[in-house]
Amino acid sequence: MTTHRLLTLLTDFGLQDVYVAVMKGTIAQIDPTLNIIDLTHDIPPQNIAAARFNLMNAYPYFPPGTVHVAVVDPGVGGRRRAVAVQLTGGFLVAPDNGLLSGVLSQHPIVAAVELTNSDYWRSVAPSATFHGRDIFAAVGAHLAKSVDLAKLGRAIDPDSLQPFPMPPAAPTENGISGCVQHLDRFGNLITNIPARLVQNRDWSIVVGQPSIPSCRTYGDVAVGEFAALIGSHDWVEIAVNCGSAQAQLGLTWGSPVQIVFS
Amino acid sequence: MTTHRLLTLLTDFGLQDVYVAVMKGTIAQIDPTLNIIDLTHDIPPQNIAAARFNLMNAYPYFPPGTVHVAVVDPGVGGRRRAVAVQLTGGFLVAPDNGLLSGVLSQHPIVAAVELTNSDYWRSVAPSATFHGRDIFAAVGAHLAKSVDLAKLGRAIDPDSLQPFPMPPAAPTENGISGCVQHLDRFGNLITNIPARLVQNRDWSIVVGQPSIPSCRTYGDVAVGEFAALIGSHDWVEIAVNCGSAQAQLGLTWGSPVQIVFS
Amino acid sequence: MTTHRLLTLLTDFGLQDVYVAVMKGTIAQIDPTLNIIDLTHDIPPQNIAAARFNLMNAYPYFPPGTVHVAVVDPGVGGRRRAVAVQLTGGFLVAPDNGLLSGVLSQHPIVAAVELTNSDYWRSVAPSATFHGRDIFAAVGAHLAKSVDLAKLGRAIDPDSLQPFPMPPAAPTENGISGCVQHLDRFGNLITNIPARLVQNRDWSIVVGQPSIPSCRTYGDVAVGEFAALIGSHDWVEIAVNCGSAQAQLGLTWGSPVQIVFS
Repeated sequence: MTTHRLLTLLTDFGLQDVYVAVMKGTIAQIDPTLNIIDLTHDIPPQNIAAARFNLMNAYPYFPPGTVHVAVVDPGVGGRRRAVAVQLTGGFLVAPDNGLLSGVLSQHPIVAAVELTNSDYWRSVAPSATFHGRDIFAAVGAHLAKSVDLAKLGRAIDPDSLQPFPMPPAAPTENGISGCVQHLDRFGNLITNIPARLVQNRDWSIVVGQPSIPSCRTYGDVAVGEFAALIGSHDWVEIAVNCGSAQAQLGLTWGSPVQIVFS
Repeated sequence: MTTHRLLTLLTDFGLQDVYVAVMKGTIAQIDPTLNIIDLTHDIPPQNIAAARFNLMNAYPYFPPGTVHVAVVDPGVGGRRRAVAVQLTGGFLVAPDNGLLSGVLSQHPIVAAVELTNSDYWRSVAPSATFHGRDIFAAVGAHLAKSVDLAKLGRAIDPDSLQPFPMPPAAPTENGISGCVQHLDRFGNLITNIPARLVQNRDWSIVVGQPSIPSCRTYGDVAVGEFAALIGSHDWVEIAVNCGSAQAQLGLTWGSPVQIVFS
Repeated sequence: MTTHRLLTLLTDFGLQDVYVAVMKGTIAQIDPTLNIIDLTHDIPPQNIAAARFNLMNAYPYFPPGTVHVAVVDPGVGGRRRAVAVQLTGGFLVAPDNGLLSGVLSQHPIVAAVELTNSDYWRSVAPSATFHGRDIFAAVGAHLAKSVDLAKLGRAIDPDSLQPFPMPPAAPTENGISGCVQHLDRFGNLITNIPARLVQNRDWSIVVGQPSIPSCRTYGDVAVGEFAALIGSHDWVEIAVNCGSAQAQLGLTWGSPVQIVFS
């Protein structure tokens, strides 16, 4: 492992309050030399789907050994588990509520633990409402300092980690059915249909009348027109050139979409 | 002192413009190796109360020797003093307008100076409108590089530092009267009543009809219901599980609240 | 060059999604020790004017050798060039669409290249929609690691770099005509009239009836009143003390303004 191991943070805490800063202070108390990168803190409050999508898409772009701490945690203080997972290319630290399921579906798991060892928490008596600071940030900092995963708590079966309830993309008679899995800031609608299912085919996408033919880039259509394309994250997406597909189509998380091959 | 001394920034400049970045560039010109952590830059414009609250709550979580530069400065270019304060656990650099009063009420002061020595400013002729860049960021960077506080200017009496006009939490016949001292991003209403005044007691909070009984965590009440609890920052707060207490109660900064013991 | 060369990022990607984080991960894969500073990621989508203004104003405050990566790129995937420019005091990496024109008008150019050498890209087959990650971030990281500009691609004539269509400030019979070149977060209207054209003169600014006399700082006028002054960035600006000039005057990007000398 490099001596410059990175730690990333993803939360729904926003940047208006100092919750994120307090996590960073907690990390700096454990190791002030750690390099912290924010994935995003603007996950819509308690939106596990958005957290799952963003973590899954950011994960592959970080160096081996990076520790990702992700806290969107509507069940804080309740009975959901706090977990850490070692993958071949990095580490995840999060509540076990489905937000890790995107990354876990794409990368092999080496080991998983429940965070039961309070030696690696900020305090043996964590607050009831802020495990991001008291457990997740502290554990993440120790992992980034190269503490062994096994020391952090009780080993658990990776298959016991929570899935996320989203119908998978599935073949139909002449195409693929899927759903909207993310709305980005530009109003682009990102589906759960991976690029590899449509590559080297002629396809269009149906979410109403008329269907939207596929193209290569936003600029391939006139300003204000719909574009269906493979986004930079390698999912099929629907965009409007210099506009918002979400505003024009009114779709949301989970809305069904259909690919039709021609 | 560690060689990895941290510097934090708190402002009301937002992140839309490059004001904060220019402060960081100024700091990097003095020492490019300093580790800078943002507390928040989304303080409502010129809201000293919000700045005071956030700085007070973030301060205890940072390593000894951390330098906190806080700039919410409606009086910039006028007659308010620019000051630096050394505490046993860290340093503060800010306009003397009450924003430091929260931290100062909780931590012993070692020494305080008015920033009169322009050797440690970015320029001997600071702009009339951006002391954050020209004085505070530059002085903070020098402090973080281990320049002695006494070199930064004229020593001042710590008792002369500006207080903030907020009625303190006070005992009543069968409880405590206080006020809302902060609204967070989730719409939680955070009072100025510290946890230690209610710990190990049965209590509820009155801000209308009916009163809200205390609980331990958001999840202890049904979705949409009010919860009165001790927040992660150790103040009594009013929340709505998966909702906004502020939107439902219409309270704001300074609104009075009453704790009733039973 | 220092061994602590900085890299800054300016985009219109916002911080809600992980686009910026993915650029940082890409940079960290090339050199995990690089110090990254965000200029801003809240440029209004595809607003080259705002990107140009912010980069121009941040540039002078960074140490020599800093690499600035700026990506506001409505033409991504089309025929606009990707370029890197070496100035005497730093480096710029961006699409060639006018966003560099502000910095370039104020600082001498040493050399410029079109980014044609894919050895320094993240991948030889960049996505059609995210050159920020696949080309600009990767090239910026290599420059910050001290790769020579000339290796990045084909040398181009600096005079061929795209200008930005904005009428320059120009003298009139008894003053200066200019326009609004930026709206900041406080609603301040920043003109394209540089401080040096009005310094040591008596002047007022006309954008309606009555004209607004110049003053030194916001606090020189009553709360709610207009102030015309030289901002911290050394441009003439129109502000409202504790309010929004933009909301009150309804001006926008490019709106004409007149300085009148008395």
